[in-house]
Amino acid sequence: MDPRIREHAETVVDHSTEVEPGDNVVISAPPAAEDLTLALSEVVGERGGFPLHVSYRKDATRAAFLRAVDPDGLDTPDHELALAEAADVWIHARAHDNVAEMSDVPGETMSAFQKAHLPIREEILDTTWVLTQFPAPADAQNAEMSTEEYEEFVWSAVGKDWEAQKEHQQRMVDILDAGEEVRIVSGDTTDLTMSVEGMTTINDHGKNNLPGGEVFTAPVADSVEGEVLFDKPLIHQGHEVEDAYLRFEGGEVVDHAASKNEEVLASVLDTDEGARRLGELGIGMNRDIDRFTYNMLFDEKMGDTVHLAVGRAYDECLPEGETGNESAVHVDMIVDMAEDSYIAVDGEIVQRNGTFRFEDGFEE
Amino acid sequence: MDPRIREHAETVVDHSTEVEPGDNVVISAPPAAEDLTLALSEVVGERGGFPLHVSYRKDATRAAFLRAVDPDGLDTPDHELALAEAADVWIHARAHDNVAEMSDVPGETMSAFQKAHLPIREEILDTTWVLTQFPAPADAQNAEMSTEEYEEFVWSAVGKDWEAQKEHQQRMVDILDAGEEVRIVSGDTTDLTMSVEGMTTINDHGKNNLPGGEVFTAPVADSVEGEVLFDKPLIHQGHEVEDAYLRFEGGEVVDHAASKNEEVLASVLDTDEGARRLGELGIGMNRDIDRFTYNMLFDEKMGDTVHLAVGRAYDECLPEGETGNESAVHVDMIVDMAEDSYIAVDGEIVQRNGTFRFEDGFEE
Repeated sequence: MDPRIREHAETVVDHSTEVEPGDNVVISAPPAAEDLTLALSEVVGERGGFPLHVSYRKDATRAAFLRAVDPDGLDTPDHELALAEAADVWIHARAHDNVAEMSDVPGETMSAFQKAHLPIREEILDTTWVLTQFPAPADAQNAEMSTEEYEEFVWSAVGKDWEAQKEHQQRMVDILDAGEEVRIVSGDTTDLTMSVEGMTTINDHGKNNLPGGEVFTAPVADSVEGEVLFDKPLIHQGHEVEDAYLRFEGGEVVDHAASKNEEVLASVLDTDEGARRLGELGIGMNRDIDRFTYNMLFDEKMGDTVHLAVGRAYDECLPEGETGNESAVHVDMIVDMAEDSYIAVDGEIVQRNGTFRFEDGFEE
Repeated sequence: MDPRIREHAETVVDHSTEVEPGDNVVISAPPAAEDLTLALSEVVGERGGFPLHVSYRKDATRAAFLRAVDPDGLDTPDHELALAEAADVWIHARAHDNVAEMSDVPGETMSAFQKAHLPIREEILDTTWVLTQFPAPADAQNAEMSTEEYEEFVWSAVGKDWEAQKEHQQRMVDILDAGEEVRIVSGDTTDLTMSVEGMTTINDHGKNNLPGGEVFTAPVADSVEGEVLFDKPLIHQGHEVEDAYLRFEGGEVVDHAASKNEEVLASVLDTDEGARRLGELGIGMNRDIDRFTYNMLFDEKMGDTVHLAVGRAYDECLPEGETGNESAVHVDMIVDMAEDSYIAVDGEIVQRNGTFRFEDGFEE
């Protein structure tokens, strides 16, 4: 077995989830991630945990079930719920034989399934959980890379020195936590301001997401003003939206456009009231992710980018007891900040053209 | 997909386990059975059940865990136990990438693992469960057949008319249930008598085992007298014992021999007191299983054979409330009855050279 698979498994078990003796560990992974599943079982065994391998939610087996089942008969399955309740650690290893495997599952069934599985999802979020990616050939294809090149890409991003990355990111966390107004400017197409006053910035250093490599917070929902052009494509339910554009007034989207699949963007914004407001401001800081791969787990962590999500805010970013922007959706979109761009906090430029003020080469 | 896989799945779901709407179904299957797993998910979905795919207990992933873990730290994993408790139906689909996958798991670890998993095993036995076989290439190799030939073999044995088979077998069940003394004679090497008085004979027609195709009961433990030569090889923990021979007095093995791996046979008999007594008398009645394939799920159902197991008796064969022969082992061994052989019940010949008295061509 490729030694990088073993290293990947060690990072998941020792860094992301810190498996301890006696831990009840679920490894949720599809057949395409078989090698990683085996390595995870081995490392969990070495740490004294008890691994159980279950299928990943989105694979051909689930798709066959979902195409066959009557959505009206769907309900929360007790056995999966009991498994999630009793689990201490839940490792999701994503990989595909075909990234379009779920494409012919009727939307109605998919919605009913997700609704029925919501209690299970909530139990999983109460475990120590991580989502990671195994570099299967179909995922490489989706990223428009050879499998060998994609393996190198994934394992470079996963195998970082996470303690050093955490320290590096903490400097940006401190700036955002101390600040109030954030302004994002890129070329003559993006100039957006928002308040993050009272919000908490999260340092994502490879715990729930592997690779990690972003810091993120929640904007004050009605504070967002200005316009933004997302120059990286947005993939939503298999559709690619290009050059998504949003204009905000009083926190709400008042104008939108796209050069391709504008109706997909419109349908996202029309989901509910919260879908027209921002739920997240994130700043990508993983410089090993140096290209766009049509996979948000990686794309949103890319160095020299900012991402904004319309829809649901993360509770951990909000003041204790406060509910933030609520919505059934959370759709991330990315702005490239590498050229002719800056981020300012309370009027002070903290990043220009992708370089932070606490890094070499920063120009005020 | 091969249409026979879909038919196999329908037999499992509709005949063996009778899945109903809302049933919590576990599909325990290794990667080598991926196609059957998919078909099972589809058919379970059509019936309105909720399938969850978990790894099969004996696959490479489990082996990697077991090689890595400290056996002293093994315990019953709560999450697997919770899953088994909440399951209504448990489908085991056996298949291998390599039938020797568990061969380098230390015996001590294997024993500790089995002991820790005993409560889970008992919960699974409380569900509607079935064990079946997918014809993977490594299993074909183990059976010394091409994959194509083995597929035909497995799906012929699985795809029988089970109602007709049940009726056919019931005639032998009725004979055994009405009888007291059973005598098994083959050539000049086997002449064994035992009492089955008060015992219940089970008609295995594809419910817990697919393929099914045997009738079995429990001998009265101290009634077994005579000698038996098992002319089909016995495979125990990866070792092949040839020409196993046992001589019984007062129900107990008083002499034994084998032409190959006699020490393996001796170690089975030395496990505990019950390992020197018979726990099962079974009669193979599935004529689609016409050859020995080194796989007891099939071999014991082979037409024209009788099998005897030293060790544990099945509760369902015993009078209500009675405990039969107890042992940590249950090891089946097979006698070929096709030539120069007969089975007699209370002095009346009921099978000669493999043909039952209720079949055409029977000669008293």
